[in-house]
Amino acid sequence: MPQFINEKETLVTDAIDGLLETSGGMLARLDGYPHIKVVCRADWDKSKVALISGGGSGHEPAHAGFVGEGMLTAAVCGEVFASPSVDAVLAGILAVTGPAGCLLIVKNYTGDRLNFGLAAERARAFGHKVSMVVVDDDIALPDLPQPRGVAGTLFVHKIAGALAQAGAGLEEVTKAAETAITHMASIGTSLDTCTVPGSAKEDRIAPGMAELGLGIHGEAGVQQVVFKNAKDAMDLVLEKLEPKIGSGPHVAILNNLGSTTPLEMSVLAHELATSPKAKNIKHMIGPAPLMTSLDMHGFSVSVLPVDDLNQAHLEASVGPAAWPGMNAVSEPAVRPLPDGLSPIKPIPSANPKTKAVLEQCCDLLIAAEAELNELDAKSGDGDTGSTLTTAAKALKGSLDRMPLADPTQLFRAVGEELSQTMGGSSGVILAIFFGAAGDACASGKPIPKALLAGLERISEVGGASKGDRTMIDALEPALQALPDGIANAAHAAREGANATASMGRAKAGRASYVPEENLIGHNDPGAEAVARLFEGLAKAM
Amino acid sequence: MPQFINEKETLVTDAIDGLLETSGGMLARLDGYPHIKVVCRADWDKSKVALISGGGSGHEPAHAGFVGEGMLTAAVCGEVFASPSVDAVLAGILAVTGPAGCLLIVKNYTGDRLNFGLAAERARAFGHKVSMVVVDDDIALPDLPQPRGVAGTLFVHKIAGALAQAGAGLEEVTKAAETAITHMASIGTSLDTCTVPGSAKEDRIAPGMAELGLGIHGEAGVQQVVFKNAKDAMDLVLEKLEPKIGSGPHVAILNNLGSTTPLEMSVLAHELATSPKAKNIKHMIGPAPLMTSLDMHGFSVSVLPVDDLNQAHLEASVGPAAWPGMNAVSEPAVRPLPDGLSPIKPIPSANPKTKAVLEQCCDLLIAAEAELNELDAKSGDGDTGSTLTTAAKALKGSLDRMPLADPTQLFRAVGEELSQTMGGSSGVILAIFFGAAGDACASGKPIPKALLAGLERISEVGGASKGDRTMIDALEPALQALPDGIANAAHAAREGANATASMGRAKAGRASYVPEENLIGHNDPGAEAVARLFEGLAKAM
Repeated sequence: MPQFINEKETLVTDAIDGLLETSGGMLARLDGYPHIKVVCRADWDKSKVALISGGGSGHEPAHAGFVGEGMLTAAVCGEVFASPSVDAVLAGILAVTGPAGCLLIVKNYTGDRLNFGLAAERARAFGHKVSMVVVDDDIALPDLPQPRGVAGTLFVHKIAGALAQAGAGLEEVTKAAETAITHMASIGTSLDTCTVPGSAKEDRIAPGMAELGLGIHGEAGVQQVVFKNAKDAMDLVLEKLEPKIGSGPHVAILNNLGSTTPLEMSVLAHELATSPKAKNIKHMIGPAPLMTSLDMHGFSVSVLPVDDLNQAHLEASVGPAAWPGMNAVSEPAVRPLPDGLSPIKPIPSANPKTKAVLEQCCDLLIAAEAELNELDAKSGDGDTGSTLTTAAKALKGSLDRMPLADPTQLFRAVGEELSQTMGGSSGVILAIFFGAAGDACASGKPIPKALLAGLERISEVGGASKGDRTMIDALEPALQALPDGIANAAHAAREGANATASMGRAKAGRASYVPEENLIGHNDPGAEAVARLFEGLAKAM
Repeated sequence: MPQFINEKETLVTDAIDGLLETSGGMLARLDGYPHIKVVCRADWDKSKVALISGGGSGHEPAHAGFVGEGMLTAAVCGEVFASPSVDAVLAGILAVTGPAGCLLIVKNYTGDRLNFGLAAERARAFGHKVSMVVVDDDIALPDLPQPRGVAGTLFVHKIAGALAQAGAGLEEVTKAAETAITHMASIGTSLDTCTVPGSAKEDRIAPGMAELGLGIHGEAGVQQVVFKNAKDAMDLVLEKLEPKIGSGPHVAILNNLGSTTPLEMSVLAHELATSPKAKNIKHMIGPAPLMTSLDMHGFSVSVLPVDDLNQAHLEASVGPAAWPGMNAVSEPAVRPLPDGLSPIKPIPSANPKTKAVLEQCCDLLIAAEAELNELDAKSGDGDTGSTLTTAAKALKGSLDRMPLADPTQLFRAVGEELSQTMGGSSGVILAIFFGAAGDACASGKPIPKALLAGLERISEVGGASKGDRTMIDALEPALQALPDGIANAAHAAREGANATASMGRAKAGRASYVPEENLIGHNDPGAEAVARLFEGLAKAM
């Protein structure tokens, strides 16, 4: 499976440089490429306890993405899924450690423990105060003597980060980190393994199966289960965590393992927030990618009991943009629907003249059904005539319910009627046309101007204007000519409709997908309908 | 391809509820499920211009994730890739619009234009001030009369959001949005299409190919190209954007289309930051998922010229955690490597007695090579004897270069020598052991206590302690007995080593992966080596 990388050899350095180049100058790196890949705070003055983490890459944003005020001072990055060397860790320690000392936050993998451990020894030999904590939060294998370190590491970065930022001493910071590690637990599940650059993807998890308790390097999980849905997947994870969740309030990290979409993560957040198994989870960090496993399609949940102190540490704002913050889990706030969704029913009123004109319009459209359909078959799906006929029949049948004596209300009511009886876009467009015309009437405009205001609005909403081979080509000149009499309007409409026959590619509506050669020589059916309407009205008057 | 959802019918409402439940009470929704899905600010007092966006779902965090202070007031969410209804949009408008009016920010799709457009008409009929802008930033099809709206929409959310937040009037906010829309341009590329829940995935893009200019609903791109690498992919995208990038400074949005990993996105950020085609891009928003297309493995770049005013609007901090902020693009800051990475070479000094003891130790280990290998073959890869012999030979050859008269320096130098000559974990463990012993010597501890300090450190770093079937089982009792004489130490070491034969599953090191039945009855080879060392020394003294 191809990925957006250049070559395996420069993958991690390219990514670190990309991070630095877009950090707004908040991050720096040591001049040790390719062997030594250390990202550190650019503004660090060594006045407080330094926090250093790291390990193999492929878990971004962990750890370099969490370097910044209130979290890590430096991240020592290995190649993908490979521990950084002793020299790299030592370089990181020596670069950022001042008189207050430093804490190394290490995930429990032999390579990391040893390389960070030896680097710590060497740094101590230089007289530095160095302490080290090992995160082993993974509960996938309950009897494993050396549980792996996974996303719970973020609790440590954040709690220790807040303490160090506040000026706490190395012992206090170390103790807080150790306490958090003792009490946290994590487990992950995934629908697929991860794609390690340069290696073939392991097809271990069959489609339709999920793996529970797999590692962040794609290590096989404790069990494969049939994947049912998000609820069931979260339920299995919480079942494993439940024995670790005590009676008091807890915080959960909901971590995206790589390629799970924001939409899926929100669904999982909902399942976590509403599961009876998680009733003591009162705060959540995420959902967000925090400790990923390349492109793994999965998630993990980490839990930690919270007291007032570590709640404050977890809540404190930080520099790194990758930190999603912690929020209280709450019931969704639901507000009542506003009034006015159902349009106000107009009060019927009589106006024989208006009624007669409207009836004429309807009859003209009904009479043109077959010919308009035929025309539409050249450029669309051949239903313009039928659509208009259906609407015209419905409108004709509704005239006795219409506020015929009040143009403002009438225009709005016609729009409403058409939006209900005409399907799809055409109904909405005519509803907008008549609605805007009604508004213009209300503000005192004469009817031709009001109709032009409606036209302007549908042009704006639909994105079409004169020359785009739509009904506008006939309607606009007709409405502009209307103050000079219906005969002039009809003439203008006809000229406009006929002009569409020589227009090339349509610029809006469905005809825009039809090749030019199919259109040339035929009037646009919408424009033709308008022309016939005005011609018919002119004839009758 | 399975996804972490429950059922298609509740996908969007589940996700919205998940968003709300983890928003810390900052978001609310209208009581219109399942038809009306409107997310709005919980703290909104209608005192300023309201900003409303939305459209089909599947683009998260757009748009509900950008509801909050300084960005959107409300998001109207349709089903996946389907426009919300007129009623839903109208409900959103009526719920949040006060006397200052509202701006609808709509992506250029017919359904969205019409539904938002008609809802705007209806809201205007209620007397609300409503304006609407249509984002059409996609330049994939240069001659398309109705370009699609894609990730550039975020520029509008942010600029209009900052202005509205600052109290600007509806006209000013609308004008700023329109200006931004006029000047922006976007294009995306992907290695795969997206998986629409409930539909089979379209296998349109062959592995090894990339599609350029595809839409955020998986609409086919303008062209398929052979995918080479991240640099080439970014280059193709920038080639399309280059004609749209003017002479002044620009800002780019680097958008993750769904399932591209943070590591890949950082590599792409590096390519964008360093491309000569993007030399006028002085600021970047992201890389981050902003306007996704479900799980599409791709990215898009949007560009906009910046002046002082919109730079300030884009930089202003906001409520929504999904907004990644804007940073200046800068060269990576590179700091010199710290001094001290090369260990200080010890000054050789003579001490015949120490030299003799060390030579004896080396000879004892060399003599035990074959037997230790044989023992190791029961539980490991059969090389303990060879590994120790290689190290012993190297150490023996280095004795004349050693600071034999200074225990502190000697321990450190022995550790250094062993870490260089022994491969893998064993070298690092012994380096840590002797390094910590050296430190303890330096602080005045006698040699047995110093060695115990070393043992404590490797126990801490390696995670093993007595009883875990490692060399510690012999070394710890031996060192504890050492103050009572070498004979007692040898006796204790032998007892400890023999005790490992009855230990079950190893708890650390490689033997922890070996079944219990293979281990029982055999001494741990590391512990055996320690016992032979002490027994040999006792015999010789």
